[in-house]
Amino acid sequence: MSKQVGIIMGSKSDLPIMSEAAKALEELGVSYELTVVSAHRTPHRMIEYAETARQRGIKVIIAGAGGAAHLPGMVASLTSLPVIGVPILSSNSIDGWDSILSILQMPGGIPVATVALNGAKNAGILAASIIGTFDPKVAEQLDNYKKDLKQKVEDSARDIELKGWKEGLDD
Amino acid sequence: MSKQVGIIMGSKSDLPIMSEAAKALEELGVSYELTVVSAHRTPHRMIEYAETARQRGIKVIIAGAGGAAHLPGMVASLTSLPVIGVPILSSNSIDGWDSILSILQMPGGIPVATVALNGAKNAGILAASIIGTFDPKVAEQLDNYKKDLKQKVEDSARDIELKGWKEGLDD
Amino acid sequence: MSKQVGIIMGSKSDLPIMSEAAKALEELGVSYELTVVSAHRTPHRMIEYAETARQRGIKVIIAGAGGAAHLPGMVASLTSLPVIGVPILSSNSIDGWDSILSILQMPGGIPVATVALNGAKNAGILAASIIGTFDPKVAEQLDNYKKDLKQKVEDSARDIELKGWKEGLDD
Amino acid sequence: MSKQVGIIMGSKSDLPIMSEAAKALEELGVSYELTVVSAHRTPHRMIEYAETARQRGIKVIIAGAGGAAHLPGMVASLTSLPVIGVPILSSNSIDGWDSILSILQMPGGIPVATVALNGAKNAGILAASIIGTFDPKVAEQLDNYKKDLKQKVEDSARDIELKGWKEGLDD
Amino acid sequence: MSKQVGIIMGSKSDLPIMSEAAKALEELGVSYELTVVSAHRTPHRMIEYAETARQRGIKVIIAGAGGAAHLPGMVASLTSLPVIGVPILSSNSIDGWDSILSILQMPGGIPVATVALNGAKNAGILAASIIGTFDPKVAEQLDNYKKDLKQKVEDSARDIELKGWKEGLDD
Amino acid sequence: MSKQVGIIMGSKSDLPIMSEAAKALEELGVSYELTVVSAHRTPHRMIEYAETARQRGIKVIIAGAGGAAHLPGMVASLTSLPVIGVPILSSNSIDGWDSILSILQMPGGIPVATVALNGAKNAGILAASIIGTFDPKVAEQLDNYKKDLKQKVEDSARDIELKGWKEGLDD
Amino acid sequence: MSKQVGIIMGSKSDLPIMSEAAKALEELGVSYELTVVSAHRTPHRMIEYAETARQRGIKVIIAGAGGAAHLPGMVASLTSLPVIGVPILSSNSIDGWDSILSILQMPGGIPVATVALNGAKNAGILAASIIGTFDPKVAEQLDNYKKDLKQKVEDSARDIELKGWKEGLDD
Amino acid sequence: MSKQVGIIMGSKSDLPIMSEAAKALEELGVSYELTVVSAHRTPHRMIEYAETARQRGIKVIIAGAGGAAHLPGMVASLTSLPVIGVPILSSNSIDGWDSILSILQMPGGIPVATVALNGAKNAGILAASIIGTFDPKVAEQLDNYKKDLKQKVEDSARDIELKGWKEGLDD
Repeated sequence: MSKQVGIIMGSKSDLPIMSEAAKALEELGVSYELTVVSAHRTPHRMIEYAETARQRGIKVIIAGAGGAAHLPGMVASLTSLPVIGVPILSSNSIDGWDSILSILQMPGGIPVATVALNGAKNAGILAASIIGTFDPKVAEQLDNYKKDLKQKVEDSARDIELKGWKEGLDD
Repeated sequence: MSKQVGIIMGSKSDLPIMSEAAKALEELGVSYELTVVSAHRTPHRMIEYAETARQRGIKVIIAGAGGAAHLPGMVASLTSLPVIGVPILSSNSIDGWDSILSILQMPGGIPVATVALNGAKNAGILAASIIGTFDPKVAEQLDNYKKDLKQKVEDSARDIELKGWKEGLDD
Repeated sequence: MSKQVGIIMGSKSDLPIMSEAAKALEELGVSYELTVVSAHRTPHRMIEYAETARQRGIKVIIAGAGGAAHLPGMVASLTSLPVIGVPILSSNSIDGWDSILSILQMPGGIPVATVALNGAKNAGILAASIIGTFDPKVAEQLDNYKKDLKQKVEDSARDIELKGWKEGLDD
Repeated sequence: MSKQVGIIMGSKSDLPIMSEAAKALEELGVSYELTVVSAHRTPHRMIEYAETARQRGIKVIIAGAGGAAHLPGMVASLTSLPVIGVPILSSNSIDGWDSILSILQMPGGIPVATVALNGAKNAGILAASIIGTFDPKVAEQLDNYKKDLKQKVEDSARDIELKGWKEGLDD
Repeated sequence: MSKQVGIIMGSKSDLPIMSEAAKALEELGVSYELTVVSAHRTPHRMIEYAETARQRGIKVIIAGAGGAAHLPGMVASLTSLPVIGVPILSSNSIDGWDSILSILQMPGGIPVATVALNGAKNAGILAASIIGTFDPKVAEQLDNYKKDLKQKVEDSARDIELKGWKEGLDD
Repeated sequence: MSKQVGIIMGSKSDLPIMSEAAKALEELGVSYELTVVSAHRTPHRMIEYAETARQRGIKVIIAGAGGAAHLPGMVASLTSLPVIGVPILSSNSIDGWDSILSILQMPGGIPVATVALNGAKNAGILAASIIGTFDPKVAEQLDNYKKDLKQKVEDSARDIELKGWKEGLDD
Repeated sequence: MSKQVGIIMGSKSDLPIMSEAAKALEELGVSYELTVVSAHRTPHRMIEYAETARQRGIKVIIAGAGGAAHLPGMVASLTSLPVIGVPILSSNSIDGWDSILSILQMPGGIPVATVALNGAKNAGILAASIIGTFDPKVAEQLDNYKKDLKQKVEDSARDIELKGWKEGLDD
Repeated sequence: MSKQVGIIMGSKSDLPIMSEAAKALEELGVSYELTVVSAHRTPHRMIEYAETARQRGIKVIIAGAGGAAHLPGMVASLTSLPVIGVPILSSNSIDGWDSILSILQMPGGIPVATVALNGAKNAGILAASIIGTFDPKVAEQLDNYKKDLKQKVEDSARDIELKGWKEGLDD
């Protein structure tokens, strides 16, 4: 059966960041595929990946890249699926500004849904929320995930209130 | 019948920018509602809007704001629907950097799909591409839209090649 | 008896920074409470905290957050107490610019008293100076604190002048 | 009778911005004085102003300056009253960054409560909220002000919802 | 006969800037072609343009684009000809930073020779200097161009020295 | 008789800014010469200017340039006279950051005394203060200049205090 | 026999970065020379180097520098050969912005082909592509280099697809 | 006998940076004094230091500070001696931008001769060059210093040319 989300990255060195998207999708029960596609080193592979994605059953593409990050925007130019861009603070990036701006500032007509610098986990959650627009089970998973986040904050708050912050600093 | 996309903005003064999202959705055949919701001046209205959106049939929320732009992120904290954020270069913004960073740099767990500064048109197209993941008619509309973009570039290219660029400058 | 200053932060991981505010208040003899409240993960807890603060006797709220830091501004939208915002250089922040701009650049009508990046100590002193507008004992404490600061500089100056800077480098 | 808030600015050319603080205070029923004090051109006047403020009955000082803006920080070094700093986008400022950073980034021990670039109106409201910590009438004024802000947003929202945004664009 | 330099731009609206490259090449006696090629709206046209350029006799490609400017880098990924990138301060650009960073910060292996923001004239001169590495006539033209630049400065210097700068201000 | 200060600029178009240095020197009674010297278009003229300045009696050089501003730093590398650099917000500059950084950030061993963006007037005053280290008459002129600055602030302060700021806004 | 590419840098401490240019040229079969030339400490050496480069047979100059990086631009002002500038993140640089802007933002008439921060490897490849405009053997080497880049991406992609990304993280 | 240069810094923690100014002055044979003076913690000490400097025989003041760095500018407002400002990348600084801008961007009338971030060595050399405008022995020292700089570059160049850069990398 086909996967719902395609995760791609410009280089295998982006895997430690981009694997967070995969983990989030697994946690939320959304199927995905993951591979390396480089806009600059494998442009034809990128074109084929983007142009065949919809017919392969993919619903959302998550693309991560650093520096002059062209992968998310070029994929968005080649498909009408929603494309989520993850700016990566790679070794050749200037504090992440290049990655962010070359993904975010797309021209009119070709949007990329950009998340925070190194925000691959949020890219996974965002992809799930898109799947959740037509799959109520995924929407429910997301609601549970939000409840967990809330619970954790409340737990740590109660913990600090009970023990005092000086204790909290030592945890 | 319920609308598919909810467009909100922090102030009526954002309407000239945010109306581009509405125009894009109309062109792509996606229904929407549009209103003003301020995170800072009407926080309870914002909560109610965000928490009831899914049950009202909304599939995607587009939220635009400028300066310390908290509307998109706060709405995303209150719903598990996908939220698209439009950073607006409002009069109280420093070249747009504040709007961009306070929408883009969301913490892990609460994504906002951020588009370019003043990129409300792209927010509309992105929302349509999300609808298009389960509605083939909208997907087809997006493919046609892409073909139009391509045609316009090719026309202007042929124009310049035939007439020469000196002529082109006078157009 | 009720506390005069409420210190909140978006995550327990902000405690090493935010505890500096608590230390400053202790040193200046101002009572406080401290807990975790997240704008994005516990929005309803945030609302309740902010809306009940004045009736609980709180005079000033200090709120710290990093990245797209919405906590200080949202709290300011929910109370008419003075709110001091501490931008935190958290792990998901771009050199602190996102934290600073999303706290500082509030729209007209909803001010946040912003201090320096990671400036929780100054937030505590600022809160004390607000208490000191109507409590002469706190004002006197602040004047003594200023004298101490001055004394320390004068001591280190005399030290360098007497021993010479080469000695000073070895201290 | 003595005034509660002192508004100062580095140059008379800052008056169009800084007068917004005066207007806000008038609207909220807080008394104030307003004059020109330059850190760089009248350092002794600045010292006298800051060191005598408390004994003259001033509770809060609002100081605005542009470029290498030293007035708010220097005043804060000379008094233990709360000092609100307004970064001004003056003609000699680089997009406001110099004004913001030279006011915001004060060293430990000497806080300045910084508001948004050109945010003199918010400085006035913040000063009122400080007065409101011990003066219930001012606190009530602030609550009413917040209600007005809310009402205006709700009115413009209803307006757009009724007439439609195309009409709204023509207003 | 084939042209030596190919000038392309992402949109016809870039022509006022990019025509400066054409003018410089004309002045230096280097043949060129000029057309519109968009990375995002005509990706296949871009691929064909870049992959056939060398066999059509093109020696250097000049590519200009604004915002998330992917054209120069993508063309460089598709040809081994030298590619000169011109960052354009287009209407959708944030002070030009996005254009500059998304052209300049290419990953290892795929260089783009980047010139100043809106520096299309310099792109033309740089292309000519590349042609001049094997065509002594073009190299001579460049040397003459440099002499002209020098002469103009010396003329304006003598003018100011003779007449005085007060006269010079009125010119 | 020889002049004490040499004012140079990269282009005659910098004259409206750089003439402020000349005016300041005239006001302070310091002799000067002014001409155009371009690092990039007349490198040999620059070398000759810098290397002969001391023997011609010049005590201080003021050099203004914009964009990639190499003139002040290159002149500093060619003389041991103090060199004051004026970063100019020229038409080819990105908000002045390029001009500032390429003048300010000189390597160890080759200082340039950098003043504010477009700060030619301050460059003139700084040059005078250098002359004033050995010429008491110029030092006295500077002290008088400072008194005038102070007087003007005090006059405008008294004006506002007497008439009120509402009157002041209308001036 | 004369070398085709001249690699220079402002300080021997730049060698770890700049040697990447030499390695790339060796790999691509292009001859080069490499030495230290400082704009600020050896201006006359720089002039002689630049003015004699063409007659010594040099076709392209690669110049690297950090901070207020004047070497590439000054060399470009002294020769009509193509000059490639490498901004270096040296110890005296502010995140590389000073190096980038003082190399990139050259005035009209004097281009420098700027590559990414620390992008010396790309400078070498760019120089080879310039040699390749008239030397088919170098062009062929570049095409092979591009094929290798592609192969490596495809290998790492197949690797991840076969083994799964969890395995990939452990490599 | 009185000293010629006064070196001051805002905190003893600035000594490792600021001692470089002292070392440079020692090397160039210029007498100096060095102490700690804080604008924010010892404003009256600062005023006394600045206002008595000229009568104590001081010719140039070097002032270093970090973050919201007011010391150089405030000293410049209190004396007509030339003041050299050293922006320090202190622990409370945002990549140095706050230190640079709050020293560099002084208003018209009150110049500060700003050097590079952490550029205390250059501040010392600049101070010596100011002394050298009337003391030929210091000017000669500076010329010798420049010759040394040149010699070191030429030595390292010859070294690399003889041994090759691969050897050079191992040094």
